[in-house]
Amino acid sequence: MFAKNAWYVAATPDEVDAKPLGRTICGEKIVFYRGPEGRVAALEDWCPHRGAPLSLGRVVEGRLVCGYHGLEMGCDGKTVAMPGQRVRGFPPVRSFPVIEKSGFIWVWTGDAAQASEDQLPELHWADNKEWAFGGGLYHIACDYRLMIDNLMDLTHETYVHTTSIGQPEIDETPCKTTIDGDHAVTSRFMNGIQAPPFWRMALRANGLPDDQPVDRWQICRFSPPSQVHIEVGVALAGRGGYDAPKQDKAYSIVVDFLTPETETTMWYFWGMARNFRPDDKALTAQIREGQGKIFAEDLQMLECQQANLSKWAGRDVLKLNIDAGGVQARKVIERLVAAERSTLSV
Amino acid sequence: MFAKNAWYVAATPDEVDAKPLGRTICGEKIVFYRGPEGRVAALEDWCPHRGAPLSLGRVVEGRLVCGYHGLEMGCDGKTVAMPGQRVRGFPPVRSFPVIEKSGFIWVWTGDAAQASEDQLPELHWADNKEWAFGGGLYHIACDYRLMIDNLMDLTHETYVHTTSIGQPEIDETPCKTTIDGDHAVTSRFMNGIQAPPFWRMALRANGLPDDQPVDRWQICRFSPPSQVHIEVGVALAGRGGYDAPKQDKAYSIVVDFLTPETETTMWYFWGMARNFRPDDKALTAQIREGQGKIFAEDLQMLECQQANLSKWAGRDVLKLNIDAGGVQARKVIERLVAAERSTLSV
Amino acid sequence: MFAKNAWYVAATPDEVDAKPLGRTICGEKIVFYRGPEGRVAALEDWCPHRGAPLSLGRVVEGRLVCGYHGLEMGCDGKTVAMPGQRVRGFPPVRSFPVIEKSGFIWVWTGDAAQASEDQLPELHWADNKEWAFGGGLYHIACDYRLMIDNLMDLTHETYVHTTSIGQPEIDETPCKTTIDGDHAVTSRFMNGIQAPPFWRMALRANGLPDDQPVDRWQICRFSPPSQVHIEVGVALAGRGGYDAPKQDKAYSIVVDFLTPETETTMWYFWGMARNFRPDDKALTAQIREGQGKIFAEDLQMLECQQANLSKWAGRDVLKLNIDAGGVQARKVIERLVAAERSTLSV
Repeated sequence: MFAKNAWYVAATPDEVDAKPLGRTICGEKIVFYRGPEGRVAALEDWCPHRGAPLSLGRVVEGRLVCGYHGLEMGCDGKTVAMPGQRVRGFPPVRSFPVIEKSGFIWVWTGDAAQASEDQLPELHWADNKEWAFGGGLYHIACDYRLMIDNLMDLTHETYVHTTSIGQPEIDETPCKTTIDGDHAVTSRFMNGIQAPPFWRMALRANGLPDDQPVDRWQICRFSPPSQVHIEVGVALAGRGGYDAPKQDKAYSIVVDFLTPETETTMWYFWGMARNFRPDDKALTAQIREGQGKIFAEDLQMLECQQANLSKWAGRDVLKLNIDAGGVQARKVIERLVAAERSTLSV
Repeated sequence: MFAKNAWYVAATPDEVDAKPLGRTICGEKIVFYRGPEGRVAALEDWCPHRGAPLSLGRVVEGRLVCGYHGLEMGCDGKTVAMPGQRVRGFPPVRSFPVIEKSGFIWVWTGDAAQASEDQLPELHWADNKEWAFGGGLYHIACDYRLMIDNLMDLTHETYVHTTSIGQPEIDETPCKTTIDGDHAVTSRFMNGIQAPPFWRMALRANGLPDDQPVDRWQICRFSPPSQVHIEVGVALAGRGGYDAPKQDKAYSIVVDFLTPETETTMWYFWGMARNFRPDDKALTAQIREGQGKIFAEDLQMLECQQANLSKWAGRDVLKLNIDAGGVQARKVIERLVAAERSTLSV
Repeated sequence: MFAKNAWYVAATPDEVDAKPLGRTICGEKIVFYRGPEGRVAALEDWCPHRGAPLSLGRVVEGRLVCGYHGLEMGCDGKTVAMPGQRVRGFPPVRSFPVIEKSGFIWVWTGDAAQASEDQLPELHWADNKEWAFGGGLYHIACDYRLMIDNLMDLTHETYVHTTSIGQPEIDETPCKTTIDGDHAVTSRFMNGIQAPPFWRMALRANGLPDDQPVDRWQICRFSPPSQVHIEVGVALAGRGGYDAPKQDKAYSIVVDFLTPETETTMWYFWGMARNFRPDDKALTAQIREGQGKIFAEDLQMLECQQANLSKWAGRDVLKLNIDAGGVQARKVIERLVAAERSTLSV
């Protein structure tokens, strides 16, 4: 279950270079490529001539040339030319709204008439010199909503990420979930604790001591259709925690774009934005590598959880207080999907 | 088709150590682990919190701790604790009767009320200083009944195991099948023949000449739900064959526990118990390695046979005299399954 | 969709040597082996005893011996013998008409009564000292008709085989398709062009200059059930093109036998017959290697095209002038299949 009238992260800009990229998003087989002036285009990955995937073709002067028999496709899904053929009557292929912004390529998989750039999320840290971002992409064989659950309930860190960001205090400290329109926010504040290894590294990177008590926070924010941004950080204890002055804390945003591929597989665009030492590319690479290892720890669990849920389809799971963030997020998604369906039936 | 109200070998004790073991038996996804005092427990491999497999968790002081969010499960399938939660109302998961005995872990996949330790097979050679045992485990993509057929008709040794235990005399010597309640026994006695390579090795290991005529026997005994024990051996010719004095023969029991995983896949616990030089661990290892190679020769044949039977579903096969053991064993199984079903329908 | 009352290339003679060969042709699981006097036989790959595949057996004096329990099968599908058994009442397995001729093993997968050697194609270059042949076999996950389309529309060479035989003039020069009974012929003649790399190599191999304008031709001939022979070549420009004297041209026949395995997988027997330097085995090997690389370039495209056609089942494709050869070939096949069905329903 996923909303289709929504912007999803489909790729990072470097994935769509001189060659086209074929990728399935929300069940749609799409080819992404750079049309005139390098602008990204997204079309059904189908050549109207004989059904070959256009993603096996190449781009010539902004036109996507089918790699089988040379049909030239335009960004609007209309055939531009084909050697020796009149192409005016060729059936068009579907063109998807697509935007490159904030370091990602976003695609709208539903009704194109409803797409507008306004609906793209504002990422204040993107294209901002005071911030640095590093991230990656994993393919996971699970319903993307299992990843929403995962990211909205960070008690799993204690068990899944034991050597990096997990610590018993996460479990021991109650979290609080609030609703803000279509957004759900689950937050937890742990004061006067020891920082776990990842955060000790971050403290050192900020020029702060790593052996003193800290105040730690986690503020997980779900936004539709399937984004989770988590404000995370530690401050030296008693300096104000989340609100401590910049020089007393290490602060980041965990950035998660969860893009459905099919009902039971997903693309996981993960990353971290930070506002300390933004020009330190070695630090960006180091954080990215550490985060990549941490997030890889979730993969087996989520894929096995999905296998269990598929085997025992319909079996109830619990909705505890720690699950409130995921539960609320799912309600938002169900509302969006229901709204799409009612529009269709009118 | 398999009986569920029965004890099946699920694992060897070394497979369930500090870590839990996830394994599907008779279609049931089960987690095995060591509870209080190291006693083996078997539960549905499902965490009632969010459906994660408990087999990805760890064992802490006899409690199975879910590796996702720390739910602590008891051996009875009831949640013991979970950080920050009241667990009294948590739905239990199914607990399976399980026993560690005679060098194996046995699970009962059907109605727990009908399970009793009395129904476990007596393995007289187990926990017996005069005997040694070595064995292994193979996963095979076939209906476990194809393996019963295989083991009850040893004429296949002549064709599948040509370089070890096969010899033309097996084919040439008629076998005899008798029924004994729910047991079927197929036996064959070959007198005054040359021993094949495996048995020449065993003769030498017994301090016997390997170049003289021998009497060879094979007594295959099927016991429900799916065990085949085969008394095998050779004696110097004319010393009494099966009944020859111990110093004149090499004698072993081929031990086969055939555990259904699904309708078309199985776990093959194989091994050999012998009562000569039981303390010679090098010999145990040598026999185990040889037997492992021999039994691996069956795998491709059985998996390809299964593929054929699946493609030509319902096509008749022959039931020759050599097949009588397998045919009778299948009748026993059908009877047990029918009895289970009639109980259910009452 | 494929005709069953037809001869298909099943294997090359070297594939059926001392060991049997199991291969699925038109959905039939078949074992091929050499019976008495080395004559090829083809039977259902099923042992009437217990359903094991006969292809796992071995051949002893022209009899196929099942590798499981030693049943001996004759070329007619009747059991010849089995140790300790009377075999007269054993059910026969199906025997398929099979012929070894012209360097290939041909099997008839339909009604055996309708098979006759007369219907085998005449391959004038086979068993002809003035010709040499080299070829290979690929397994491709696509409907074999996609390969017919591929071979009857060579404009794809410009895009798929850019570095060997492709050149823009193929696109720019119209082709012509004619129908000749159950045969379809698509031809294209390009005069006064530069030869592409593969043909420059062939010109040099013929002792001709490779830097002069040439006339190039492609005459694709489809014959049922699924053969495409393509006369290809280049002649020095103005010497008569296709009809130029032998010393002024390089001429070959691309030989393609497209054998359905299932509805969506196929065996691709490809090769090239040439009448220049037929005794030069190094040249045969060189051409074979080059052609193997070229034809491998089609695989990904065809498998991805098949995936697209399966996903969008029923979606229309275009039938342009360049597609006429494939379109006509499909009509022939549909006619043959319809005729088979009407015979069945009488």
